Amino acid sequence: MTVTAPKGFRAAGVPAGLKSTGARDVAVVVNDGPSAAAAAVFTSNRCKANPVLWSERAIADGTASAIVLNSGGANCYTGSFGFQTTHETAELAGELFGVSAVDVLVCSTGLIGTGDETFRQRVLEGTRAAAGALSGGGGQDAAEAIMTTDTVAKTAVREGAGYTIGAMAKGAGMLAPGLATMLVVITTDADVEPPALDGALRAATAATFDRLDSDGCMSTNDTVALLASGASGVTPEPGEFTRLLTDLCHDLAGQLQRDAEGASHDVDITTTGAASEAEALEVSRAVSRSNLFKAAIFGNDPNWGRVLAAAGTTNAAFDPHDLDVTINGVMVCKAGTPHEPAESVDLTPRATTVLIDLHAGDASATIRTNDLTHAYVHENSAYSS
Amino acid sequence: MTVTAPKGFRAAGVPAGLKSTGARDVAVVVNDGPSAAAAAVFTSNRCKANPVLWSERAIADGTASAIVLNSGGANCYTGSFGFQTTHETAELAGELFGVSAVDVLVCSTGLIGTGDETFRQRVLEGTRAAAGALSGGGGQDAAEAIMTTDTVAKTAVREGAGYTIGAMAKGAGMLAPGLATMLVVITTDADVEPPALDGALRAATAATFDRLDSDGCMSTNDTVALLASGASGVTPEPGEFTRLLTDLCHDLAGQLQRDAEGASHDVDITTTGAASEAEALEVSRAVSRSNLFKAAIFGNDPNWGRVLAAAGTTNAAFDPHDLDVTINGVMVCKAGTPHEPAESVDLTPRATTVLIDLHAGDASATIRTNDLTHAYVHENSAYSS
Repeated sequence: MTVTAPKGFRAAGVPAGLKSTGARDVAVVVNDGPSAAAAAVFTSNRCKANPVLWSERAIADGTASAIVLNSGGANCYTGSFGFQTTHETAELAGELFGVSAVDVLVCSTGLIGTGDETFRQRVLEGTRAAAGALSGGGGQDAAEAIMTTDTVAKTAVREGAGYTIGAMAKGAGMLAPGLATMLVVITTDADVEPPALDGALRAATAATFDRLDSDGCMSTNDTVALLASGASGVTPEPGEFTRLLTDLCHDLAGQLQRDAEGASHDVDITTTGAASEAEALEVSRAVSRSNLFKAAIFGNDPNWGRVLAAAGTTNAAFDPHDLDVTINGVMVCKAGTPHEPAESVDLTPRATTVLIDLHAGDASATIRTNDLTHAYVHENSAYSS
Repeated sequence: MTVTAPKGFRAAGVPAGLKSTGARDVAVVVNDGPSAAAAAVFTSNRCKANPVLWSERAIADGTASAIVLNSGGANCYTGSFGFQTTHETAELAGELFGVSAVDVLVCSTGLIGTGDETFRQRVLEGTRAAAGALSGGGGQDAAEAIMTTDTVAKTAVREGAGYTIGAMAKGAGMLAPGLATMLVVITTDADVEPPALDGALRAATAATFDRLDSDGCMSTNDTVALLASGASGVTPEPGEFTRLLTDLCHDLAGQLQRDAEGASHDVDITTTGAASEAEALEVSRAVSRSNLFKAAIFGNDPNWGRVLAAAGTTNAAFDPHDLDVTINGVMVCKAGTPHEPAESVDLTPRATTVLIDLHAGDASATIRTNDLTHAYVHENSAYSS
């Protein structure tokens, strides 16, 4: 059911020839109301794709009635022609659904620098075909249509007190902070005004997607959009809504992590005993960016020296001689010296935990990352060829 | 000849059992004067190895008469026992050479977290053996003794007006800024006072080793030491000395780049048209840290979208729609849109150049990096096992 689980939404996903495989590649999600409240967050990359440039403007008034998404091309660095493609897509969808073009968000994913006339025509034809296929059960087709190197469609649903939140997500590579590389559409039949929606979405993404850092690379197309139809007639308590939304985003972020390109380990790096949450994040992020550490995990090697070497590049408060490192429950380094033997760490499971204690305060935070594998190198050396 | 090319230096490299292969693993370089002027720069990592902690203190007075170096163990995060090992090494060398222990620098390289009683005894025995083997032709043996995953010994010599500069270097992995991971010993028979020596060394390393960023990982043991014997009797013009020293360091940095673990391309990333040199470095550095870009180069794929995506994570002044990218001489992106076809870029040579024009000023700078390969992952997943 995914994005069509909440009342008031229809969706579709169709093949439009953008993927060479002939698989579904254009998706549409429509909010039938009564409310058109919406919020969205976008990549913090300064090099933004054309659909991001468009959608940032379109969401500014806090309303959106439809989203058109395509895989098979990022429409990024395709110049004014590419921006015009996005604009025409929104205009067409507006006509088809009887709304203003500026109430249509557009998302694209795929290679940067591609988006010619053929691309444009296929996106437009796909939008028209998807509009004709819209249904209250179309969420799964839509979720499949936004997949790129994803091996599985990602969806999630949460039930609140009288309302529902549904979602679909794509993302497998270029997963990094300030949003992982991904497109996420979240729908709800709760009745929430745009400012409250925006606040809830920013709180939820800051605690979840912003802490997913698979490969340190930030995308140009990241978008997380939240549409509220109000069809349940229920206005949730704000704190409960944010908690439920955060839980759903945490679920999706985990799905992205477990499907990251080529990864053989999902590594949750928690820094504790930090002077502040920001410093805990800084240390966990630095370790998640260490190719040497990530390659060691791929080799089932609990190389804690590489953890400390990465921590040492940060400005977080700590005494370098009072650091503990625990890998999969085994404290391999205590107070900056070898402790339990590294041989006692079992790194064969895919789920891996690294705990760093700075002994400098009470704050903690986790970054979710992956290991660096032959398959990652292979997939990303061949992706565009 | 390497470090023994200048007058006034003897060196040796001997096997002491630290390397399981039985290869040379302890080196000693002695300055016979008449001057004992010296300077050194160290890793900016806050997690510093014991020999770095020692040598930082020992160099504080601007003099050093000898350096003891070992491969086969970094002596980092080995606690007070490890620091005592370094201290004993310097004391022993001081006795052997008739100088104070604080005129002896110590360098170690190898795995972090190892350095037990056996390690200590082998380093001490190796120091004694190397002292007995010192000769004016021992530079090559010393250069071999500091190799770890290096496939070749790195050395360089430059001739000034009446004086000579010689050097040896090791470094193949964990190459990153604030010094690449490496040990470098530079000797000269020029007569230069410690403050001038220190200024020349900092200028030379800032322009060379600090701009080598093979894999984004910063080491705990980096040391570049410069010893001046004064034996030529020549005091060079300061600018000429710094230029010659910089040229020698540039040569060594190139040798490190070409021997980086698993690399199949040496990638020089130049950012031009920047508002400042610092911003040019920031952009080049961001691109050099993109695993996706580096994997693409391994796959001979001139994926300029990944160059722009990395540039977009920086704060450098530029208009995202006025960026040019040229790879191996082919301008694949002009003013933020596709230009020459990517197929016309030949990425089969190992030497690769990426030129990014920000059109925002007159400054430029280059970061030297490598591609991300299967061999890198393999070597670094198995290194400690």
